[in-house]
Amino acid sequence: MKALILNIGDELLIGQVVNTNASYIAKQLNLLGIEVKEIRVVNDEQSSILNALEEGQKYNLVIITGGLGPTKDDITKHTLAEFMDDTLIEDKMVLSDIEQLLASRGRAMNELNKQQALVLSQCKVIRNFLGTAPGMLMKKNQTVYISLPGVPFEMKPMLNEALKIVVSELSLPAILHKTYFVFGLPESELALKLEDWENRLTKDGIKLAYLPNRNLIRLRMSVYQSEEGTLKKVQTYAEELKNILGKHFVGEDLFEQSDENPLARVVVNVLKEKKLSIALAESCTGGSIAAAITKIAGASDVFKGGVVSYSNEIKQRVLGVQENTLKNYGAVSKECVEEMVRGVKNLMQVDIALSVSGIAGPTGGTANKPVGTVWMSLMINDSIETKLFQFGEQYSREYIIESAVFNGLAWVLKRILNF
Amino acid sequence: MKALILNIGDELLIGQVVNTNASYIAKQLNLLGIEVKEIRVVNDEQSSILNALEEGQKYNLVIITGGLGPTKDDITKHTLAEFMDDTLIEDKMVLSDIEQLLASRGRAMNELNKQQALVLSQCKVIRNFLGTAPGMLMKKNQTVYISLPGVPFEMKPMLNEALKIVVSELSLPAILHKTYFVFGLPESELALKLEDWENRLTKDGIKLAYLPNRNLIRLRMSVYQSEEGTLKKVQTYAEELKNILGKHFVGEDLFEQSDENPLARVVVNVLKEKKLSIALAESCTGGSIAAAITKIAGASDVFKGGVVSYSNEIKQRVLGVQENTLKNYGAVSKECVEEMVRGVKNLMQVDIALSVSGIAGPTGGTANKPVGTVWMSLMINDSIETKLFQFGEQYSREYIIESAVFNGLAWVLKRILNF
Repeated sequence: MKALILNIGDELLIGQVVNTNASYIAKQLNLLGIEVKEIRVVNDEQSSILNALEEGQKYNLVIITGGLGPTKDDITKHTLAEFMDDTLIEDKMVLSDIEQLLASRGRAMNELNKQQALVLSQCKVIRNFLGTAPGMLMKKNQTVYISLPGVPFEMKPMLNEALKIVVSELSLPAILHKTYFVFGLPESELALKLEDWENRLTKDGIKLAYLPNRNLIRLRMSVYQSEEGTLKKVQTYAEELKNILGKHFVGEDLFEQSDENPLARVVVNVLKEKKLSIALAESCTGGSIAAAITKIAGASDVFKGGVVSYSNEIKQRVLGVQENTLKNYGAVSKECVEEMVRGVKNLMQVDIALSVSGIAGPTGGTANKPVGTVWMSLMINDSIETKLFQFGEQYSREYIIESAVFNGLAWVLKRILNF
Repeated sequence: MKALILNIGDELLIGQVVNTNASYIAKQLNLLGIEVKEIRVVNDEQSSILNALEEGQKYNLVIITGGLGPTKDDITKHTLAEFMDDTLIEDKMVLSDIEQLLASRGRAMNELNKQQALVLSQCKVIRNFLGTAPGMLMKKNQTVYISLPGVPFEMKPMLNEALKIVVSELSLPAILHKTYFVFGLPESELALKLEDWENRLTKDGIKLAYLPNRNLIRLRMSVYQSEEGTLKKVQTYAEELKNILGKHFVGEDLFEQSDENPLARVVVNVLKEKKLSIALAESCTGGSIAAAITKIAGASDVFKGGVVSYSNEIKQRVLGVQENTLKNYGAVSKECVEEMVRGVKNLMQVDIALSVSGIAGPTGGTANKPVGTVWMSLMINDSIETKLFQFGEQYSREYIIESAVFNGLAWVLKRILNF
């Protein structure tokens, strides 16, 4: 079964919104063994939408998001009616859902809300309990079309409802995916190490994908569960893989939420295994390392807490950094991060503490400490190690923060794995 | 000038990676007045790639990312050679770039690295100083094709280099975009309020888009700068808009980084205007509110710091929450968040403090306090207000954290704007 994901919206084409809907939908379809052959993003123009809907006839399933709002630039519903050769009618249940939703927010129905209750006469309605735009499931020739709103938190539960209908009407072959995490090996070295193993794997009908994210690489085996013993075959290959990788193998098959940091997940899992606790003192990363860790379910087993010491005052008052240290060396210095890490380790009473202070930019850089300069200090039990990172002043604030988060987490992982 | 963005990679089609490249590229093209007509994501199969490259002939520019790694599933370069009817040759400069990059990381060249130096014989090379895959700029008939690696931090500087070449060879009409932030008005009410204004705007050749994100809506006016006085015309409409919106107008034309939170930007700007400082005590959001605020350049003017009190111990030791409070009411309670907010306000010496404690799930919920239960307390000067949010136990950890971040920021904004 093959699918097209069609996202409609000018906001995606001018880059104001990141298309997280596509990855979420792709993941859900994948879990059901539905192969997403293509993702297309088109603008809010009738001809673009019609053309993409027509292209959708090549597939068994088309999931459409966006263009269902009450405003003039939202034309998906009318375009779908034209494509399906259908008309729009007011749906009483949808109208009542909208009324109730508005009432729960203390609002009355207006003309535009009322138009939201119009749906294609031949569609199956997918109810929306979190917004005013209903979803619709329709069929044209052999292709099922599902139209959903573009607001992610409305779309997600509606997609699940719609896919239940799809599943109940078809019997689909399942795909088995297994993902293995490899740390500290460049992709090209890894590929050479795996060459023989990979050749045998491919001949056995198992597809292998490399999903690199800096020096953490996810290796994903995928195979149709068409025959008995598929799982066992994959497990045998996995055992071989672990032997080849040695200490570079750092985890497997961890469930991934769409916006969680895979490295943070590995760090949390390894800390949990080793029964170690961690705390953070963050300045330039401003809570981003703590946020990455706490997005992982179960982080509370290993993460005690952190201090975001964004001002010098807080570095002094909460973490005990000396005024003289700040005066003589500045907040972005070896001396400061070492006092920060001692302060937070003492405050939080943990096995491991990491401190970060740097210049994320775009302003605040100097000749000696350009934008991108980041000091970190890592304290494990009683031993302190301190490092200077230069992420490069040509980079964005976003990239520098992201790099500091990645390098901080990678450093912790290396040390607890004794790399 | 019209463009297609073509992202190649199975990882995008199974949803393991969010396509941030597409939004980044779209934003850069938009700034240059190049209209992105479509974004397509296809898999690492030759026929899919060839088909999309052929479709690209409809446009002036095709930006391709992905499939340039050294592994077997990366076939973009060979496919491009076939499409362009060209051959791959080793480029000496690229080979030397790769050697230097590897040397800087203390690594020697292997066979796979060496193959990375192969480029199309007719292409213009876009050098990669941060990875081993070179970029290429080629032309077929009237269409310029640019191939870049899929790793975002490698792709970004290379895209800028490639676009300099595109710009220098063509003269493009500029598009003027102005964005206005509207807070606290539902989209349908806003649309009714703006109906007349919007009709006149459209007749004047200005396109209007609604970009909603819960109860923050960005209104974007877009117009080709074909004639003199375009900016003035837009400014006149903007003044009218501000009058219509009154206090719901909360900002304009704020530069947006791709992963910054627009509401956090508005909060930082309004705090700055009002010369107010803020601090946070976060439990279930685990630093995500601090991270959203500190991603905004200039946040240090208003944000002093935060405590991520992920364990009860830290709530007591750092924030001064009473042991009895935790024993009698638990960490997710009115009493606890009120002690947290007093504690952090006192510790950080700020005008405004916000505390958050809740159950993000997936485990930890009870009958009385299901997953999704979040208490927040907001202290402005000496007055404390406390609220219970129930985000719904049917939601993911990710959604609950995101909802808490949004609602916390929105609450701060409402209070400082006296809504």
